[in-house]
Amino acid sequence: MQLTSETLERAIEHLAKLPGVGRKSAQRLAMHLLKQSDEQVLGLASALADLKKNIRYCTVCFTVTDHDLCPICASAKRNTGTVCVVEEPKDVYAIEKTGEFHGRYHVLGGVMSPLENIGPNDVRITELIGRISGSEGVKEVILALNPDAEGEATSYYLNRLLTPLGVAVTRIAYGVPMGTELEYIDEATLGRALAGRRGF
Amino acid sequence: MQLTSETLERAIEHLAKLPGVGRKSAQRLAMHLLKQSDEQVLGLASALADLKKNIRYCTVCFTVTDHDLCPICASAKRNTGTVCVVEEPKDVYAIEKTGEFHGRYHVLGGVMSPLENIGPNDVRITELIGRISGSEGVKEVILALNPDAEGEATSYYLNRLLTPLGVAVTRIAYGVPMGTELEYIDEATLGRALAGRRGF
Repeated sequence: MQLTSETLERAIEHLAKLPGVGRKSAQRLAMHLLKQSDEQVLGLASALADLKKNIRYCTVCFTVTDHDLCPICASAKRNTGTVCVVEEPKDVYAIEKTGEFHGRYHVLGGVMSPLENIGPNDVRITELIGRISGSEGVKEVILALNPDAEGEATSYYLNRLLTPLGVAVTRIAYGVPMGTELEYIDEATLGRALAGRRGF
Repeated sequence: MQLTSETLERAIEHLAKLPGVGRKSAQRLAMHLLKQSDEQVLGLASALADLKKNIRYCTVCFTVTDHDLCPICASAKRNTGTVCVVEEPKDVYAIEKTGEFHGRYHVLGGVMSPLENIGPNDVRITELIGRISGSEGVKEVILALNPDAEGEATSYYLNRLLTPLGVAVTRIAYGVPMGTELEYIDEATLGRALAGRRGF
């Protein structure tokens, strides 16, 4: 297939590198963009370039932000005594959406994974310890890592590491998600829900 | 949900405008891009901006190109006596992929659609007539429009308009696609295949 425009070909190649976008959808996206206004296409292009130019990591919690401090760490309304530990900035948004958490976050930037050669020094654990012994007055650390093998292992590791420092280490509840039927829940989740039963 | 970065929020909003990309996938794409190298992200951004800055339309056939003439119209190897009429530049690529066509194209830029108020003057029909009476020596016009109501109507219209100009007007065969089973083909296609039967 001979494309008649190298510019178009280059755009398609770049789009096809996005996760979940194959060559065919990349072609469709590029053709779609060709038909959009200058404003729309250049707006998208500069918004993407800005991701690399403007984005910084909060010096306290390491989530993505445009400033030194993210709006959460900069807010006087947040309780600095409670720190919720998550893997990635997207988990910060997921928890913020609930409106149930009023403390600060700590973004590890990944989880430990022996198989991928990611050890404790490759995620921001030293920085977390620094915060606990620092001036924030941290009393509780809530672990909110993904319930997969790596997340579990990292949670256990953090619990053993942090408890001796005199903070309460808790973890979010894992169990049956709301709005589902027990019949369709896998055994691991149901087992976890049983083990985690609480009084009314 | 409070996002911690306006830059990230803007990128997500722009990505969510792409066809088939919802808010959730836009978020995933933006997070993915955050982790990529400067080179990759800025490469994508500039490739998209170039779509608007560099892309032109071939002055002969109106497909997308980076120059005055597309490589197909610029090639001395193409037969200028045969013109294949298509709706969009993507159809040019689809036909080029077959390797079976050695003439030139004419991209209408759409098809007539009374419902959407698109008449003969809104697609490049005048330009097509200009080519037929011009210096290319066009002897055959092959209609390769999509087999939907608008494509059919436009094909009939073009046939009536062009035949009196002394060119042969043909259309690509519509029928049973290769590699399928008759059982699963809709009646319209099968009817068309029967009506279009040919001797061995």
